[in-house]
Amino acid sequence: MVRKRKNFKKIAIYSSLKNNKVPQIAKQLEEIIINMGLEVFFPISSKDILKTSSSIVSEKYINENADLVIAIGGDGTLLSCARKFGSHNLPVLGVNLGQLGFLTDIAPDELTGSLQNVFKGEYDLEERFFLNAKVNDNSFENIALNEVVIHSREVAQLIEYELFINDAFVYRQKADGIIVNTPTGSTGYSLSGNGPIMHPSVKAITLLPMFPHSLDTRPLLVDDSSEIVIKICRKGKATLSLDSHNYHNLKFDNQIKITKAKPKLFLIHPYNHDFFSACRNKLGWSLGMPEQYKT
Amino acid sequence: MVRKRKNFKKIAIYSSLKNNKVPQIAKQLEEIIINMGLEVFFPISSKDILKTSSSIVSEKYINENADLVIAIGGDGTLLSCARKFGSHNLPVLGVNLGQLGFLTDIAPDELTGSLQNVFKGEYDLEERFFLNAKVNDNSFENIALNEVVIHSREVAQLIEYELFINDAFVYRQKADGIIVNTPTGSTGYSLSGNGPIMHPSVKAITLLPMFPHSLDTRPLLVDDSSEIVIKICRKGKATLSLDSHNYHNLKFDNQIKITKAKPKLFLIHPYNHDFFSACRNKLGWSLGMPEQYKT
Amino acid sequence: MVRKRKNFKKIAIYSSLKNNKVPQIAKQLEEIIINMGLEVFFPISSKDILKTSSSIVSEKYINENADLVIAIGGDGTLLSCARKFGSHNLPVLGVNLGQLGFLTDIAPDELTGSLQNVFKGEYDLEERFFLNAKVNDNSFENIALNEVVIHSREVAQLIEYELFINDAFVYRQKADGIIVNTPTGSTGYSLSGNGPIMHPSVKAITLLPMFPHSLDTRPLLVDDSSEIVIKICRKGKATLSLDSHNYHNLKFDNQIKITKAKPKLFLIHPYNHDFFSACRNKLGWSLGMPEQYKT
Amino acid sequence: MVRKRKNFKKIAIYSSLKNNKVPQIAKQLEEIIINMGLEVFFPISSKDILKTSSSIVSEKYINENADLVIAIGGDGTLLSCARKFGSHNLPVLGVNLGQLGFLTDIAPDELTGSLQNVFKGEYDLEERFFLNAKVNDNSFENIALNEVVIHSREVAQLIEYELFINDAFVYRQKADGIIVNTPTGSTGYSLSGNGPIMHPSVKAITLLPMFPHSLDTRPLLVDDSSEIVIKICRKGKATLSLDSHNYHNLKFDNQIKITKAKPKLFLIHPYNHDFFSACRNKLGWSLGMPEQYKT
Repeated sequence: MVRKRKNFKKIAIYSSLKNNKVPQIAKQLEEIIINMGLEVFFPISSKDILKTSSSIVSEKYINENADLVIAIGGDGTLLSCARKFGSHNLPVLGVNLGQLGFLTDIAPDELTGSLQNVFKGEYDLEERFFLNAKVNDNSFENIALNEVVIHSREVAQLIEYELFINDAFVYRQKADGIIVNTPTGSTGYSLSGNGPIMHPSVKAITLLPMFPHSLDTRPLLVDDSSEIVIKICRKGKATLSLDSHNYHNLKFDNQIKITKAKPKLFLIHPYNHDFFSACRNKLGWSLGMPEQYKT
Repeated sequence: MVRKRKNFKKIAIYSSLKNNKVPQIAKQLEEIIINMGLEVFFPISSKDILKTSSSIVSEKYINENADLVIAIGGDGTLLSCARKFGSHNLPVLGVNLGQLGFLTDIAPDELTGSLQNVFKGEYDLEERFFLNAKVNDNSFENIALNEVVIHSREVAQLIEYELFINDAFVYRQKADGIIVNTPTGSTGYSLSGNGPIMHPSVKAITLLPMFPHSLDTRPLLVDDSSEIVIKICRKGKATLSLDSHNYHNLKFDNQIKITKAKPKLFLIHPYNHDFFSACRNKLGWSLGMPEQYKT
Repeated sequence: MVRKRKNFKKIAIYSSLKNNKVPQIAKQLEEIIINMGLEVFFPISSKDILKTSSSIVSEKYINENADLVIAIGGDGTLLSCARKFGSHNLPVLGVNLGQLGFLTDIAPDELTGSLQNVFKGEYDLEERFFLNAKVNDNSFENIALNEVVIHSREVAQLIEYELFINDAFVYRQKADGIIVNTPTGSTGYSLSGNGPIMHPSVKAITLLPMFPHSLDTRPLLVDDSSEIVIKICRKGKATLSLDSHNYHNLKFDNQIKITKAKPKLFLIHPYNHDFFSACRNKLGWSLGMPEQYKT
Repeated sequence: MVRKRKNFKKIAIYSSLKNNKVPQIAKQLEEIIINMGLEVFFPISSKDILKTSSSIVSEKYINENADLVIAIGGDGTLLSCARKFGSHNLPVLGVNLGQLGFLTDIAPDELTGSLQNVFKGEYDLEERFFLNAKVNDNSFENIALNEVVIHSREVAQLIEYELFINDAFVYRQKADGIIVNTPTGSTGYSLSGNGPIMHPSVKAITLLPMFPHSLDTRPLLVDDSSEIVIKICRKGKATLSLDSHNYHNLKFDNQIKITKAKPKLFLIHPYNHDFFSACRNKLGWSLGMPEQYKT
C-alpha cells in the first residue's frame, strides 16, 4: 500500500446494483464533486440504475477522460467496475451501502469527509492484479479480478484435466472443476471451497480443485508470475467462467492459459484502510475480540 | 451383516457398462448358472451391452420372478441395478471387471468358486437403505442409494434454502447446493466434498453444504429415521439430482422432503467381505500397511 | 427424546465451576426445592464452590439416594457431573450461568418455572452414551462422555498406531494422535479438528486422526456397537486422555479397546429442548436466520 | 531458480541420520570429491554417524572454510544441515537414501554423474527463506526453515493469543496452537493440518491455527516481508517450537515476533529439479498420471 498525492479532477460514478439507496448516494456524490469544483460523469450503462439525466457519457469516454471512477454498491459492483474501467488503468474507489465490503470501504455516513480528502490526494493506493485467461484455439480471451473457474457445467458431473505450471506437469485430475484465484478472489468463491485467505499484498495465485476425486489434493499456491495451463482431456461439457461474469464453453483438448494480466487495478482507499478489519466484519472474526480493538 | 442360508434359483444378469469384458463375464456367469441347474434371465434393457440373445425378459418380469440379480461392472452399474431391481426387494450381487469397488466385490478370477457358494446359500447379506425424495407439489418423487443433491445448476451460482429436521428449523444457508447422503454414498460424491466416511452399518444420514457462504458450516449427521425438509427460498435455478441419474428442476418455495425409503437394498457378499479392505484399495489407505494385513 | 412422567424427590446440587454466580444460583435452587417440599443434598466435593453449609453428603451417598442431580455451570461442569453421578444412572439436569450450552439448557432467569415443571415430571428424557476405554495390560479403564484422545503428548511429535474395528484391520497411521468421540463430543474438541456434527440421537462413533501424515485420511464413523482397538506400534511417548479429565501414559505395544460403556447418561431437559437452537447460538449459525425462527 | 556457474572446491559432508546406508554413501561421496582433486571435510558432530576418521573439523571451521555442504539422509537431515550451515550462507545439497525427498533430490544411484556436474558449476541454485522468531523479553531468538509452532504443550489444552500483522490487529483466538510456516514448511507439518501447498518460489508465510475454537478460521497467507506478532494472553503452559528442533517455554504476556530471517538458504539442485515431481512422489499425486509424464 503506497500513499501517493495526485489530485483527482474528472470523476465518473458507476453502479450495477438495483437498490433504492444507490441513486441517493449518487446524488450526494455528485454534489460533493461539484461543490469542490470538479467534473463528474455518469456512464450511459449506469443511467437507469443511478437515475441521472445529466453528464451522461459512453464508457469509452470515461476510460479516455476520467481520472477516477467511484463504484456504488457491494463488492460485486466494484468487481464489474474494475473489469470495465479499472482494467484501463483508471483508479477505482468503492462506496458501500452501509455494510463494509472487502473492496468497498467508504460508508455513506462518512462520504463527504472521506471523499474530500481523497480528491485532494490524501489516500492510499493499492495495486491488485487481474488474471488473464486465454483459450489456445483463440476462441476466447478475457480477464478476471477474483477467479477463473473451469467447471463441468452440470451437477455432480466431472471434468478431467491436466495441470501444467511453467510447462512442468503437475497432475491429472478428475473433479467437478478447478478454481484459479487471485488474493482478491481469496475472500470470495474460493473461500467457500476451503481455500486459504491471502492478504492482498501476497504475490501468488491459488489453484483449488472443486470436489476432486483424489483425496490427496490440497490447495496449491504458485508465484503470480507463473504460467498456468489447464488442458481439458475428457470429452464432455466444460465451461470457463470469469468472475461469474463471462462464460465460455470449452472443447475436448482445449488448453486454457492463465497468467497475471498486464493491466493492474489501482484501488483507492481512505487513509488507514485495514484488510483485517474487513475480515473481522465479513467473516465473523470480531467475536471474541478484546474491547480496545473493536471499531 | 447377517449370514443367511437361502438358496438362489432364478438369477438375472444385468449391466449398464459398455466394456468389452462385460459380455465375456456375462457368458461365463451364464455357464456357471446353467451348470448348476439354475435358471438365468437377461433384462431386455441390457441386451446390447451383454450381447446375449436368449432368455431375454422384461425388467418387470425379473422383478416378479427372479430371486437374485447379478450386476456386472463398477459401483455405478450396481447403483443403477439397485435402483431398478434392488428397490423391489430383489437381492443384488456385484461382479467387478478386475478392480474392487465398494459395492462390487467379486473379481472375475474368483467367479466360479464365489458364485457356487453364494448360489448354495453361503453368503453374507447386508442391508443398505435408500433415501426417498419428494417435492411438496407432487411434481416428483424417487429414491437414491447414494445421495440426493440440490444444486444451483450453474457454475458458482448460489441457491438459498432453509433446512428443517423433524420440523425443527436448523439454518438458512446460501451455498452452491447441498448433498444429503446415505452411508453407501459416503464413499462417493460426498467424499469429494470432504464429507465423513460412514461404515455401511451406521444408521445415519449426512447433510453436506456445497461451497457454503458461511464459514461456520460443518457436515451434519442425523439419525436415519429423521425427516429432512429443504425449502428453496430464493428465486432462480435449482435442480434436484438423485444418484446423478434422475434430475428434476425445482421452483421457488418448493419443499423437498427426504426420508429413509421403505424398500431396502439387500446386498449379497461372499463370506469375509470387508468394507475397510475396499477403503484401503479405493482410497489409497493400503500405503504403509503392515505386511501381514496386505491382501 | 422421550417424554416420561416420573416425579423427582431427592435432588442433589453440584458444581465444579469457580464463579460468583454459582453460589447464588445454588441458593435459589435450594429454595425452589425446599418450597416444593422436596429434599436437597450437596456433595462434599462442591462445598466450597457452592458455599453451602447444610445438607452436605458424600458423593457415594448421592449416588445411592438421590434421584436427580442438577449441575450449575457450563458444559464442562455438566461433563464432570455426568462422569461422577450420571454414570451411576442418576439423571442429570444442567443450569447454565446465562449463556446457553449444548448440555446446560436452563437459564437462571427461567429457573423457577422450568424446575417446578421438571420436578413434577414434565420433562424430556434424553439418553446419551459414554465410551469405555480399557488398556490391554489392565493398567487403566475409565469412561468418557465426549471423547477418548490418544496423543503424542508433545508438540508436533507423532505416534504410530494400527486401528481395528470389530477385529478387522482398518489402517496403520502416523499422526499427532487420534480422537474417538461420541455424538455428545461432536460439538467439542472433535469439531475444532474439522470433525462432523452428530445429532445426539445418532448411534455412531467418530474416529478423527489429528494431523495425520497421509493426505487421504477422512473422519470415519462406525456404529456405536463397534469394538474399536488402537494398537500403539512405535516406541515413544503416548498418552490416553478422557474428556480432558483423566490421563494415562501408554507404552509401546499397548492396545486400547474403546467400546460403548454400559452405563448411560440420562439428560433431563425442559420441554421443547432443541439441539439445533443450541448449535445456532454456540456456532454462530443464527446469522442469516429468518426473523420468525429467532428465539 | 537461477542457473549459476560457480565451481565448488571445499566440500563438507554432513548427516544426522542413524542408518547403515549413510556411512556407505559418505565413503562414496568422499571418493568422488577426492578423485576430482577437491577438498573434503567432516564435521566432528557427524563423526559417529558417518563413521569417518580423517578430515574431521569443527562446525565453525566448515562455516568459515567450506563452499558447499552435502547432507546425506532425508528432509529432516537437510533441515538440521540448513540450520547449522545453510544459515551461514553455505550452499546446501541433499543426497537421499533412495527415496526422493522434497529437499534431498539426488539419489544414490546417480551420485557420481550428478555431483561431477554440480562441482563443475552445472547446477540450479534455489533460494529459500528462514523465519526468525524472537521473544520480546529477549529470552529466546532462533530461526526455522519449516515452521514456528506455538502450542499448549498438552493434549487438548488450549492457549489464547492475539495476532498482529505489521502492527494491525488480526484476531484473538483460542486454539491448541498456531503454525507459522514458510513455503518450504508447507509440505511438512502444516500440510497435516490442512494447510495449503506453496511452491518454493512463493514469497509468503502461512498462519494456520491448530484446532481453533472458532469455526470461521481459515489458513491465512501474508507477504514474506510481514512482521508477525503473536501475544500470549492467557495464563497456562505454552511452548515455542522451531522445526521440532528448538523448544522454549513461553510466559503469559510474552510477545513472539516472527519475521523473515536475514540469512537465506541456498539449495543446490542438479539441472531439471522439479518440485511437482517431488509432490507426485511424496503425496501420491502420481496415481492417474498419463504414461508420458511418469518418471
